[in-house]
Amino acid sequence: MSAETLGTLQKRLAAFASARDWGQFHSPKNLAMALSVEAAELLEEFQWLTDEQSGRLDDARRERVRLELADVFIYLLRMADVLGMDLMKAADDKIALNERKYPAERVRGDARKYTEYD
Amino acid sequence: MSAETLGTLQKRLAAFASARDWGQFHSPKNLAMALSVEAAELLEEFQWLTDEQSGRLDDARRERVRLELADVFIYLLRMADVLGMDLMKAADDKIALNERKYPAERVRGDARKYTEYD
Amino acid sequence: MSAETLGTLQKRLAAFASARDWGQFHSPKNLAMALSVEAAELLEEFQWLTDEQSGRLDDARRERVRLELADVFIYLLRMADVLGMDLMKAADDKIALNERKYPAERVRGDARKYTEYD
Amino acid sequence: MSAETLGTLQKRLAAFASARDWGQFHSPKNLAMALSVEAAELLEEFQWLTDEQSGRLDDARRERVRLELADVFIYLLRMADVLGMDLMKAADDKIALNERKYPAERVRGDARKYTEYD
Repeated sequence: MSAETLGTLQKRLAAFASARDWGQFHSPKNLAMALSVEAAELLEEFQWLTDEQSGRLDDARRERVRLELADVFIYLLRMADVLGMDLMKAADDKIALNERKYPAERVRGDARKYTEYD
Repeated sequence: MSAETLGTLQKRLAAFASARDWGQFHSPKNLAMALSVEAAELLEEFQWLTDEQSGRLDDARRERVRLELADVFIYLLRMADVLGMDLMKAADDKIALNERKYPAERVRGDARKYTEYD
Repeated sequence: MSAETLGTLQKRLAAFASARDWGQFHSPKNLAMALSVEAAELLEEFQWLTDEQSGRLDDARRERVRLELADVFIYLLRMADVLGMDLMKAADDKIALNERKYPAERVRGDARKYTEYD
Repeated sequence: MSAETLGTLQKRLAAFASARDWGQFHSPKNLAMALSVEAAELLEEFQWLTDEQSGRLDDARRERVRLELADVFIYLLRMADVLGMDLMKAADDKIALNERKYPAERVRGDARKYTEYD
């Protein structure tokens, strides 16, 4: 990973939007839509592949997937910035919640439980 | 932002999955599905709000939104890790592509152009 | 509406897939992915529009939206067919459930309630 | 399939919304979001299943899937109604386009082509 931090990246994205007068479009509602659209473009790359094929992508698809991951990341960072939320802190808090909800010793190897995981 | 890096967070997520034997479910295809599902749960929080309401969430919704952002982030990090891709590098590359595709001086204030942005 | 029924349309779609050997890709899992992808392509048409703009689309966007609605419908029909489910019956059953869950006299004009509708 | 037509069903859905003053929320933009959210709830049922498991659902999941299909159908019908579009006609037109785009004799058995299908 580069030494760049999420905060630095968020400042670049804010400047990018601002230089284009795009801030007006970036309400949390619209950004949530954009994030869903990008997540679906990522999904589209995998929709007709088998599970196994999805683990050994050819170079062209691999690069498309990499840039779709970037799009999701960009809108996620933008949305957190606009809402004034700290993504790393949110992830820490959610992992702590998940650790309490799914204790390792209780769920290990229980595929059925996993299919009910949310 | 905490001093924690994306790489550290990805290691924690990998350990979390491994301790529960959940690695078997984490094919790129399945993770792309999970990411889309989480993005839609975020979207759901905004679907009936006006643009303006989406900018001043009440505390309960704000906390739900924060944890949905975390879920998207967690699956994004997990997917990048499983695919061996560097998210910060991918974002840098995508921003560079966008800068060439949408030069500030040409698109500024052109809302119509923006609606065709992808 | 044409006199064509959903069943007739489903038979045409099954024949279309069969003539191309595409049945092999049409597992319920893959069709659910395709349906989500098409729903997001529809969403993409609206992501940067205001609510008001979304009600008066220009001709080009209106035609794109019409064909995206068709794509969602096509995968929905295909999925119901593959799963052996009757869409009209499912809709009837769901509307009956909603009528019990949201009695008109209790929810009328309560926007807050609506934002919690699912 | 019941003898009920799409038009009849759309009238029932319009009356349902109207009796609850929910028409105000049903802009095309908001309905596109709701449709995406419902498609993702359907997707969620399949996200950790194998392809093969997705073809033999247990009764509880099968019923949840059936009602999620209904939710997608309901928002699709509602959206077409609000936009004044004929779903059957749209599907007919899209199938005709697909027949020209993917001639059976040219694509048969070509899985690679299919993965590029959109």
